[in-house]
Amino acid sequence: MPLSRREFVATAVAAALSGRGAAARIPWLDPYREPAARLIGAALEDASAWNRLAELTDTFGHRLSGSRALEDAIAWALRRMREDGLENVRAEPVRVPRWVRGRESLEIVFPYPGELVMLGLGNSIGTPAEGLEGDLLIVSGYDELERRGREAEGRIVLVNVPFTDYGATVTYRTSGPSRAARAGAVACLVRSVGTDGLRTPHTGMLTYRRDAPQIPAAALAVEDALRLERLAARGERVRLRLKMDAAMHGEADSANVVGEIVGRERPHEVVVVGGHFDSWDVGTGAIDDGGGCIVTWEAVRLMKALGLRPRRTVRVVLFTNEENGLRGGLAYRDAHRAELADHVMMLESDGGVFRPHGFGFTGNDSARATVQSVATLLGGIQADAVGPSGGGADIGPSVQAGQIPAMALDVDGTKYFLYHHTSADTVDKLDPGDVARCTAAIAVMSYTVAELPERLGTS
Amino acid sequence: MPLSRREFVATAVAAALSGRGAAARIPWLDPYREPAARLIGAALEDASAWNRLAELTDTFGHRLSGSRALEDAIAWALRRMREDGLENVRAEPVRVPRWVRGRESLEIVFPYPGELVMLGLGNSIGTPAEGLEGDLLIVSGYDELERRGREAEGRIVLVNVPFTDYGATVTYRTSGPSRAARAGAVACLVRSVGTDGLRTPHTGMLTYRRDAPQIPAAALAVEDALRLERLAARGERVRLRLKMDAAMHGEADSANVVGEIVGRERPHEVVVVGGHFDSWDVGTGAIDDGGGCIVTWEAVRLMKALGLRPRRTVRVVLFTNEENGLRGGLAYRDAHRAELADHVMMLESDGGVFRPHGFGFTGNDSARATVQSVATLLGGIQADAVGPSGGGADIGPSVQAGQIPAMALDVDGTKYFLYHHTSADTVDKLDPGDVARCTAAIAVMSYTVAELPERLGTS
Repeated sequence: MPLSRREFVATAVAAALSGRGAAARIPWLDPYREPAARLIGAALEDASAWNRLAELTDTFGHRLSGSRALEDAIAWALRRMREDGLENVRAEPVRVPRWVRGRESLEIVFPYPGELVMLGLGNSIGTPAEGLEGDLLIVSGYDELERRGREAEGRIVLVNVPFTDYGATVTYRTSGPSRAARAGAVACLVRSVGTDGLRTPHTGMLTYRRDAPQIPAAALAVEDALRLERLAARGERVRLRLKMDAAMHGEADSANVVGEIVGRERPHEVVVVGGHFDSWDVGTGAIDDGGGCIVTWEAVRLMKALGLRPRRTVRVVLFTNEENGLRGGLAYRDAHRAELADHVMMLESDGGVFRPHGFGFTGNDSARATVQSVATLLGGIQADAVGPSGGGADIGPSVQAGQIPAMALDVDGTKYFLYHHTSADTVDKLDPGDVARCTAAIAVMSYTVAELPERLGTS
Repeated sequence: MPLSRREFVATAVAAALSGRGAAARIPWLDPYREPAARLIGAALEDASAWNRLAELTDTFGHRLSGSRALEDAIAWALRRMREDGLENVRAEPVRVPRWVRGRESLEIVFPYPGELVMLGLGNSIGTPAEGLEGDLLIVSGYDELERRGREAEGRIVLVNVPFTDYGATVTYRTSGPSRAARAGAVACLVRSVGTDGLRTPHTGMLTYRRDAPQIPAAALAVEDALRLERLAARGERVRLRLKMDAAMHGEADSANVVGEIVGRERPHEVVVVGGHFDSWDVGTGAIDDGGGCIVTWEAVRLMKALGLRPRRTVRVVLFTNEENGLRGGLAYRDAHRAELADHVMMLESDGGVFRPHGFGFTGNDSARATVQSVATLLGGIQADAVGPSGGGADIGPSVQAGQIPAMALDVDGTKYFLYHHTSADTVDKLDPGDVARCTAAIAVMSYTVAELPERLGTS
């Protein structure tokens, strides 16, 4: 019989307190059991993290860099952080690109006129106002693009690679447009990078290479890619018209949002937790990455609410402009370069706040042994795994510059690439209980690392 | 170990031939075993039904009544039917409404500006060109609409009823707009009628009542309905702007497509099989109901290809304008009124061509006993169930007027309302093997009923 919610919370709290199982064999953890139990209990007590994420995403919608929505959401976060009693709450200024999608469409001109489902890629240029027409050339990857390079001249090229995993497929989205342009294509379509959906195109950033002309580029829904593939296989000549208003409109002012609990003994030593506050301009950026921001922020809020002030400073950072520029992560590194040596650990949550399994971690053996022990405090919520590699796009520049131990929240990612960068990235896809567990996991890990007598990785 | 495809086909054919299981106890079926086995074998031999459905939907896209796509698809079907060697191939003229969606959008004006995901309901009127603004009133059903009727004046009303099953929920789509209009609403949103998708709105027809003003109406994606519900629950005043170009543009010429195998002994007695050839203007109408058209057509084509000419005529009808008018079904009844008495049975496939279970049937006890026996020939493909009620929207008027035994193909409907009336209704959602089984089931049933010595229901 499954546990009731109340029973589950009691069990999870008791597990942290008593150190059953693996935790029982680690006596030095004893001082952290009671705070961990309180953090877990408070996180699981209600749906406040999910509710705050709903408030954020319901009120402001998407938060694309350069949009008023993002800046208003940033102002809201600063206000709420201060209401929470966080310390040194501030906006650290960042200039971000202002790319605006505008209207866009793709249609078959012949054999039969009709609309296809597309979504322009981030940072793409637009087409002329009247659109851009071309015959279709479909390639199954870069090999075929090389082989049939001469056929691409003047055509709209579809890079039609089935999704396997993100790492293997995303290269066609980021680099495909410039590769097609070098072969002479006038525009590039990329088969949508994501798991099978409901004619759901996935946007995401492209990177124009300097040695290729810039051409407009869009993701094409998988269903439409398959349709064009079948038309081509039947020997049909297919002609398309692409219209995109997309354009880069200079830069805009934005900010990383920072809040802290200042350490009681070593305030200059910092544990950073965070996610990115910007999103793509479809959906409401609940999964990518409103959720990561809220659970890291909630973790710090709970410490404050419970009167838990660790030895070192715990700092939450809501980074701006991860999606199409990474300017927030770069700006944090530059603004804090002098204190990176005092960054004890950085933790990012940017894989969705689904059911947490634990963490990925990158650091020395001593640090790994320590965080593995700390993670046993989370055995009661089954979030005690510590995988081989941690980090995140936003903390990346700082981690690299400062050789800082890096952690990522690790969750059940089964559905992540179903929603990723689509209009379906909304808060209803997330379970309040899972979001609470993510908060609990981050709270316990970051509090304990900030509280340890020895700096992480030095014992 | 699962059977290979070849083994499966052989087993299914052998089951029909040998009359294993239930069929073995029905000696009068013996003359039908060999034709049934040949039809099953031919249907399962290749993916020709799926391929033809792909050709139809890839080439023409959606086939909304009044569109050029529908009429060109009709011309294609007539041509292909003649190539197949079907007899008396003809277009039976039908006037259909020409409703055109045009551009449409819904946005939050405040608390925070942003787009919502909507899809206008079929037959809706449009808004003024500049759109139409109103404060939002959310009602959980007609009771609340009655109770809060006075609050609806001048507002955009969202009828926010979670999907349970289609029958219970579709009433809010068809009648909600006029109910809201009578209470004074300026526009009506209906929470999308379908199972949980990926911010996937479902269109479908509304019916304006004569005693209410006509107001624009649209389906709202479930995620957006939930978001508005939460905003309202937080006490936020929400103001929306709806823009819809939708308009009825008179009528257009269309046709039911008819093809036959003329009966060798009683040509005036007819077994009708068919589906509807029109679709909504999103997706490509592969599931609803291109598939129903193709499998019934393929069933007749296979009889022709195998030289099977039953005693009675088998007629395939691809009805026009089911979705927003039912003019095809009504026109068939009117054009064939004199011969309805000679309609031995009518079978419609309009529930998707997923894995078939068998049939639903409405007719007298003698007829039911006969079709249950015939269905045992389909035991080898597990399509031998005969459920309590058959029929279909298109055959409905004729069935009613002529008191004709009525049958529906019954399939695994688990995913039907995920795709129904959405842009995700495309051929890739259908499995070629399932489509082949649907063809086989319809071919065996319609051939055998047309071949029986006694007219169905009279023995």
